[in-house]
Amino acid sequence: MHWLIRWLTNSSLLAWTILFCLSAATSSFSTTNMADFPPPKDYSHLIFETKQDNTKWFHERGPLWQGQAFSLQIKEVLYHQKSLFQDVLVFDSEHHGKVLVLDGVIQCTERDEFSYQEMMAHIPLYAHPDPKKVLVIGGGDGGVLREIARHPGVEEIVICELDKDVIDVSKKYLPFMAEGFDDPRVKVNIMDGAKFMEENQSSFDVIITDSSDPVGPACVLFETPFYKAMHGSLREGGIICTQGECVWLHVNLIQPLVKAITPLFTTVEYAYCTIPSYPSGQIGFIIASKGGKGCKVPTRTPEASVQKELRYYTPDIHQASFVLPAFAERAIFGSDR
Amino acid sequence: MHWLIRWLTNSSLLAWTILFCLSAATSSFSTTNMADFPPPKDYSHLIFETKQDNTKWFHERGPLWQGQAFSLQIKEVLYHQKSLFQDVLVFDSEHHGKVLVLDGVIQCTERDEFSYQEMMAHIPLYAHPDPKKVLVIGGGDGGVLREIARHPGVEEIVICELDKDVIDVSKKYLPFMAEGFDDPRVKVNIMDGAKFMEENQSSFDVIITDSSDPVGPACVLFETPFYKAMHGSLREGGIICTQGECVWLHVNLIQPLVKAITPLFTTVEYAYCTIPSYPSGQIGFIIASKGGKGCKVPTRTPEASVQKELRYYTPDIHQASFVLPAFAERAIFGSDR
Repeated sequence: MHWLIRWLTNSSLLAWTILFCLSAATSSFSTTNMADFPPPKDYSHLIFETKQDNTKWFHERGPLWQGQAFSLQIKEVLYHQKSLFQDVLVFDSEHHGKVLVLDGVIQCTERDEFSYQEMMAHIPLYAHPDPKKVLVIGGGDGGVLREIARHPGVEEIVICELDKDVIDVSKKYLPFMAEGFDDPRVKVNIMDGAKFMEENQSSFDVIITDSSDPVGPACVLFETPFYKAMHGSLREGGIICTQGECVWLHVNLIQPLVKAITPLFTTVEYAYCTIPSYPSGQIGFIIASKGGKGCKVPTRTPEASVQKELRYYTPDIHQASFVLPAFAERAIFGSDR
Repeated sequence: MHWLIRWLTNSSLLAWTILFCLSAATSSFSTTNMADFPPPKDYSHLIFETKQDNTKWFHERGPLWQGQAFSLQIKEVLYHQKSLFQDVLVFDSEHHGKVLVLDGVIQCTERDEFSYQEMMAHIPLYAHPDPKKVLVIGGGDGGVLREIARHPGVEEIVICELDKDVIDVSKKYLPFMAEGFDDPRVKVNIMDGAKFMEENQSSFDVIITDSSDPVGPACVLFETPFYKAMHGSLREGGIICTQGECVWLHVNLIQPLVKAITPLFTTVEYAYCTIPSYPSGQIGFIIASKGGKGCKVPTRTPEASVQKELRYYTPDIHQASFVLPAFAERAIFGSDR
């Protein structure tokens, strides 16, 4: 067996995280480019398996969710190439539609992607009274853009995606998500979002970071300097929403991050949604504001015609998504109950 | 490969459910016993695998969640026998503590069982203003009993479990759950819960059905006659809480059940909790009342000393758990938004 899988399985989450974060930290925060990262690995030998009954499966095992694995049955592999930054795989599954996988980790399935995209976009946008300019960092599949485009009041949507291949592949194989790129308000930058934010101070009402897990290129997106950059690029009254991992797996990662950024923002809160194809079946969002009273209660609600098109978000789900189980509330925010 | 796995994989959810429900329906509803069921199968060849890196894994594939599988890394198999009713497996996992598996399906892991047990017990108990007598059907692992025992006002706790082996195995290998049997208010009946309810009309304030999935012995627990029996055994003002599967997988099973039992009860509602080791990472509860205004808002809250011991339930989570994603609210309750 390849040495890597043994190492992945045996190494602790902490060691793994520290290793990659240190590796990323050695490069300058605002000059992220392909030279900062090792060449993408080939994950084929780890993730594909043909069972004795001739069914083909994709396996997701990762150092951030040790001892558990999620598998999807493959109908057909549509695309599998290394981009400049990562291993990019798209397959059609037997029961979950098209699936995008980066570096061996499921990013979205056609069956359940709507929960993540809707919640990541609509929580900050409906919490904000009048968002005009929105920045998306990452999100190259276009799903978050698709949801932002449902807000008629938004005038400009800028996306900074580092990996052009993710956009191209999504446009070809995931048109139900990539349709977000079709909105005339969308402006695409193939560049490091942190660099873009440094050059655009006090510019945005909402900034959404739709990132992969804190391993490799996405590691810096889970560090305080990145949150400082978002704060600087926000207008007064602005709101950020970032991928915040899972309380069942990562409170030890979420808690110090929330603590570190609390002095930067007026409010720092945490919401989540359920999404079966992500590890442990849910994903969270760190939601922080520059001014304001917090984002738990929406200040606007979807028009009836928009609500009919939404499959996960409602104003009630917005509020409920901030209510955490006792163990998570204690671990992240130090609640005494 | 054994024919079964190919059949399981290819057959549709509907066909599978109908087959087993029809099979169960041919036996009299109130005389469930071992003669009604085929002998338990051996699942060893389906669920165990040793990887090339010598790690050992348990795989959960099932007809109720086609095309997806969840796996846990095994440290040691502690028990694996057929009981009169089912294949009973207990293993110690590398990262999820002790795991109980019935007929190849994970029933609980030491790491996350608290969410299901707490929510299943405390939602109906804190919704009820003064529960004195509580009936548990199934729940042989003792976890729900452990939670009911936290309510000092409860005077009597009756459990009807069909499979004595599940109780014995849990007492030996899952003491953190089976401690629920130690409470002096608990009375154990090894028998069919439906038969017990027929003999005990208008007797209970809360009835909790902690069942496995609607395949084989548990199939009748997802049918209207069983809900009629619960209604009959409830006192006026009483509340039932039953295992209600997962909205991401089973709205087609939940919706007709909710519709069928709505005329029986004063209120019929649906709540859920997240639990990573169940298929799709969450499980729901059908909660219905005989009288009353519904159970979404607790009428009592845990004392501070009890709340400190709880890891999932809070009065806020109680209310939030009834807020469903738009797609589920539409599918189950026909919401127009």
